[in-house]
Amino acid sequence: MKEYLDDINKAFESKVRLGIMSMLMVNDEVEFNTFKEMLGLTDGNLASHLKTLEGLGYIDVKKQFVDRKPRTTYSRSPAGEQAFKVHLQALEALIRQTAD
Amino acid sequence: MKEYLDDINKAFESKVRLGIMSMLMVNDEVEFNTFKEMLGLTDGNLASHLKTLEGLGYIDVKKQFVDRKPRTTYSRSPAGEQAFKVHLQALEALIRQTAD
Repeated sequence: MKEYLDDINKAFESKVRLGIMSMLMVNDEVEFNTFKEMLGLTDGNLASHLKTLEGLGYIDVKKQFVDRKPRTTYSRSPAGEQAFKVHLQALEALIRQTAD
Repeated sequence: MKEYLDDINKAFESKVRLGIMSMLMVNDEVEFNTFKEMLGLTDGNLASHLKTLEGLGYIDVKKQFVDRKPRTTYSRSPAGEQAFKVHLQALEALIRQTAD
């Protein structure tokens, strides 16, 4: 059991970050407001979680102007994709062992 | 995706509590020191997580003397078992959706 727990990444512990990464695994790009709606978060709460993931190099941020309005989109980085896969595999192994 | 996240229980977010509950799902009783060894924790850190789970009614605590030495064992409560199952199912659904 310990070996699975070692692979569980503290960066993805929080359910918000679990949600953010899950969305980024199935979408190449996600807008700030889409996260807000899907995860039911305040701007401040969401921004701080995104900052943490960005600081760890797990997500990339793109800021651009569309019809003169600022648009911020996020995507998973290769390192983020790899780290999250390891995390999910560890969760799956823990769940399988718990279900047996 | 939001519906899965709603079922993810903040009480089990931390990887330590995930480990504690996983161990209690596959063992009817676990001693304090067994948790310490399996999860590689300090007394204080482990005690505070156990206190949180106990406070939520998710685990039961039994204190007894064996050969005049104090022995504290923990077990999952029916509420804890049910809550953790819902949590694991939500994680599984999120993982499945992420893998597709």
